[in-house]
Amino acid sequence: MDHDNFIGHALDEAQTSIDAGNIAVGSVIVRDGEIIGRGQNRVESEKDVTAHAEVDAIRNACRNAGPAALVGATLYTVCEPCPMCLGAINEAGITCLVLGGQHSKVGITRFGDYCVERMVELTNSDLKLVTGIRENECEEMRRRSS
Amino acid sequence: MDHDNFIGHALDEAQTSIDAGNIAVGSVIVRDGEIIGRGQNRVESEKDVTAHAEVDAIRNACRNAGPAALVGATLYTVCEPCPMCLGAINEAGITCLVLGGQHSKVGITRFGDYCVERMVELTNSDLKLVTGIRENECEEMRRRSS
Repeated sequence: MDHDNFIGHALDEAQTSIDAGNIAVGSVIVRDGEIIGRGQNRVESEKDVTAHAEVDAIRNACRNAGPAALVGATLYTVCEPCPMCLGAINEAGITCLVLGGQHSKVGITRFGDYCVERMVELTNSDLKLVTGIRENECEEMRRRSS
Repeated sequence: MDHDNFIGHALDEAQTSIDAGNIAVGSVIVRDGEIIGRGQNRVESEKDVTAHAEVDAIRNACRNAGPAALVGATLYTVCEPCPMCLGAINEAGITCLVLGGQHSKVGITRFGDYCVERMVELTNSDLKLVTGIRENECEEMRRRSS
């Protein structure tokens, strides 16, 4: 299935990320069945606190395909995006977010009551959320960053 | 007063931003009384949807001073940051946000019920907020983007 395939590419990016000394997060952006952007966490390797995998993938897609191509696209990522990344996803006009793993298990805890659904509601976004894709592999990848 | 001075630098960045064909937003980051980062909106000129002034300033400060220098720093910006930018501000460890203009007048409306205070509450952040600095000039600058 397509979701499995594209989360596999996000897992590949996460592996490259951890190999470069960063936390194990990777993302890809898909439009019309084609990957138009790939992103890794580069916070440590590039000393840039904004270089999360989702932001990196969005910037990569902007360079590859232009900003207009992101409107209506789907972003695949291995775990729950932080508030900055979710803001960037909305800013780009991405309309579907696919998470590896079950949302309840990959949620982040350093931001109080934040979760994707609460911020989607607060910002009146119509982002579609899909979770539970290749859950075990994504959970295993997440543990490697701990 | 210091706040007036640093918002003046943010206004200068906003002017440069609009001169380059972008919306009129500018930001500076201050640590121990010195500017360590400057940012402009570069969304149109660089075809990068993540290149808002606040994110641009954070990246610039990371390059200039290193990520550790942002922890405890103050970010000055001419109007209310969007969710992505506020997330980046928190991600950087910035602890004080100074807005030009009164918050109620410079608030953004394209994100439903979002405002800085609500997202600070949702994410359990302790960001300090200061508003109303050089209000008339910031409001005039904002109107130039409309």
